[in-house]
Amino acid sequence: MATENERHDIPENANEHCPGPESESAGKSDACEGCPNQQICSSAPKGPDPDLVAIAERMATVKHKIAILSGKGGVGKSTFSAQLSFALSSMNYQVGLLDIDLCGPSIPKMLGLEGQDIHQSNLGWSPIYLDSNLGVMSIGFMLPNPDDAVIWRGPRKNALIKQFLKDVDWGETDYLVIDTPPGTSDEHISAVQYLQSTGIDGAIIVTTPQQVSLIDVRKEISFCKTVGLKVLGVVENMSGLRQSLSDLRFEKVSDDGKPSDITEWALSYIKEKAPELLSVVACSEVFDSSKGGAEKMCEEMGVPFLGKVPMDPELCKAADEGRSCFLEKGFAGSAAPALKRIIEKIVVE
Amino acid sequence: MATENERHDIPENANEHCPGPESESAGKSDACEGCPNQQICSSAPKGPDPDLVAIAERMATVKHKIAILSGKGGVGKSTFSAQLSFALSSMNYQVGLLDIDLCGPSIPKMLGLEGQDIHQSNLGWSPIYLDSNLGVMSIGFMLPNPDDAVIWRGPRKNALIKQFLKDVDWGETDYLVIDTPPGTSDEHISAVQYLQSTGIDGAIIVTTPQQVSLIDVRKEISFCKTVGLKVLGVVENMSGLRQSLSDLRFEKVSDDGKPSDITEWALSYIKEKAPELLSVVACSEVFDSSKGGAEKMCEEMGVPFLGKVPMDPELCKAADEGRSCFLEKGFAGSAAPALKRIIEKIVVE
Repeated sequence: MATENERHDIPENANEHCPGPESESAGKSDACEGCPNQQICSSAPKGPDPDLVAIAERMATVKHKIAILSGKGGVGKSTFSAQLSFALSSMNYQVGLLDIDLCGPSIPKMLGLEGQDIHQSNLGWSPIYLDSNLGVMSIGFMLPNPDDAVIWRGPRKNALIKQFLKDVDWGETDYLVIDTPPGTSDEHISAVQYLQSTGIDGAIIVTTPQQVSLIDVRKEISFCKTVGLKVLGVVENMSGLRQSLSDLRFEKVSDDGKPSDITEWALSYIKEKAPELLSVVACSEVFDSSKGGAEKMCEEMGVPFLGKVPMDPELCKAADEGRSCFLEKGFAGSAAPALKRIIEKIVVE
Repeated sequence: MATENERHDIPENANEHCPGPESESAGKSDACEGCPNQQICSSAPKGPDPDLVAIAERMATVKHKIAILSGKGGVGKSTFSAQLSFALSSMNYQVGLLDIDLCGPSIPKMLGLEGQDIHQSNLGWSPIYLDSNLGVMSIGFMLPNPDDAVIWRGPRKNALIKQFLKDVDWGETDYLVIDTPPGTSDEHISAVQYLQSTGIDGAIIVTTPQQVSLIDVRKEISFCKTVGLKVLGVVENMSGLRQSLSDLRFEKVSDDGKPSDITEWALSYIKEKAPELLSVVACSEVFDSSKGGAEKMCEEMGVPFLGKVPMDPELCKAADEGRSCFLEKGFAGSAAPALKRIIEKIVVE
């Protein structure tokens, strides 16, 4: 359990104390509040936390721990976490997937495990097993109604993350993949803090090529550097839409702005007049990457670039339907082979 | 300043107290921690907060307050907030845009205001003015280095949000647009709690048509119902990619999976063989909306549906370049006219 004393604990290297502009009026344990000019605040170091010992014992059977981070939301972090877990389990590793996005848990849906319930045994909380070698834990399995909002402030979120790490019976596990919410706040600070002494391989950061996403990724890399979490690499997701031309829909827009569907006409027109187009891949740079995208940012920040994954409706569908994208054969330019190349870089024996 | 006593305050209708599974071992002020089966925890009600009086005074000159929410991140919430603010100011309203996404502030970039500094006067903190009738406030203006991570736990975030509401000198304002981070946690609880007595019009919820995003939107609507925040409506963003066929790039994938760019050849081939295609709009349902998307969800949840905005590279570019998307004339099927129709529904006199 998180106790009051713990609220200000943050990982080592980050224990400076900043008197904020209003610190003179701050409550005794909130002396750093309201300080916009300092990024990290912490009160004096506290004594050892007995829960950290329990977490270390629990994690002793877990070989690799990888956190999936992103600065910005909606960049495909959960999709990546899910597909990474699918891929690792298909390579016969024992895999655990832990979802610590408590307010917006996507993992149950993305693994096709909605409506499942957590069971407790004398060994702890049992993950939900999709296959014998792929176990999943998420707050999504604990909500009586899937529409229920988890209206929790930080301390309660931290307590559940601690419970996930302390009480879930992962067993002998090769890879524990930890899917996080966007940002650099309670969930991230707590997860790193609780796991740091157990050895965590590092973080994979997911982004899109957009400038607004890359700005947040830079912050996420700063977070990793500050808390001493190794950046295993950056994945550029939604790196342009790539789709077979014959899979597109077509519209005509009338002079008064009304669109009408002309897909049937367009496809037969193409077949008749320009059949060579049917085997062409249509590409759209949905997010402008003219400024170099994630690859250039990685060079500047000195972290590894793992590769690009195109935006692919097949991948989105696999995520919505809770299945692996690797089972069906897409064309070579689609998301699955790109993801596979990236995952091969991550696997270390 | 947020004080210790405040941590458990949440808006009215939400003051049930849940003894969690480990509550017997919980610290005195964290009795609700670690409780996965209850969505809302709160300790006993506290006395009136003098800061709420200051916030009410500050907000007395602000006519309308609209929070922009989303369950999931990356659905275009900040883009919508920015373009809504551009549109309202072009309609000659006095507009304030407040960014309370403290860990990932996108608003400075999306308004083209990076590198600006906040000034203080005896009236309080001055917003950064893009035009005389569009003022902006964001933690992004307070970071010494744009790559710095804001590694703050909840109480510190709450304190800064309170300061934004209490100390920023918005002056006579028609619309205060509040851009929030994804989720239903500290930032959201605090913003609603601090603003509720001042009268807040309600929330606009932004989503994509994806099931994984809609799941989170349902939670966000539950949040609004729980805390008594009116849902003004739901916007479906990234509702399919719509782009002039002649703006696409084209690739050929060789047998060994290598793509090569054939855009030049394809366009001249189309010009020669199938010229009618040049005026066609190519559409891709990037995110599967076959299950009815946001419109159906709105019917089921009993909240207004405001409309769909297509995924449009021009809109992404406007966001990355910090400018209004309404200045250039896109084709009628693109994002700008769709956004305009939605904004007209929101404006109330």
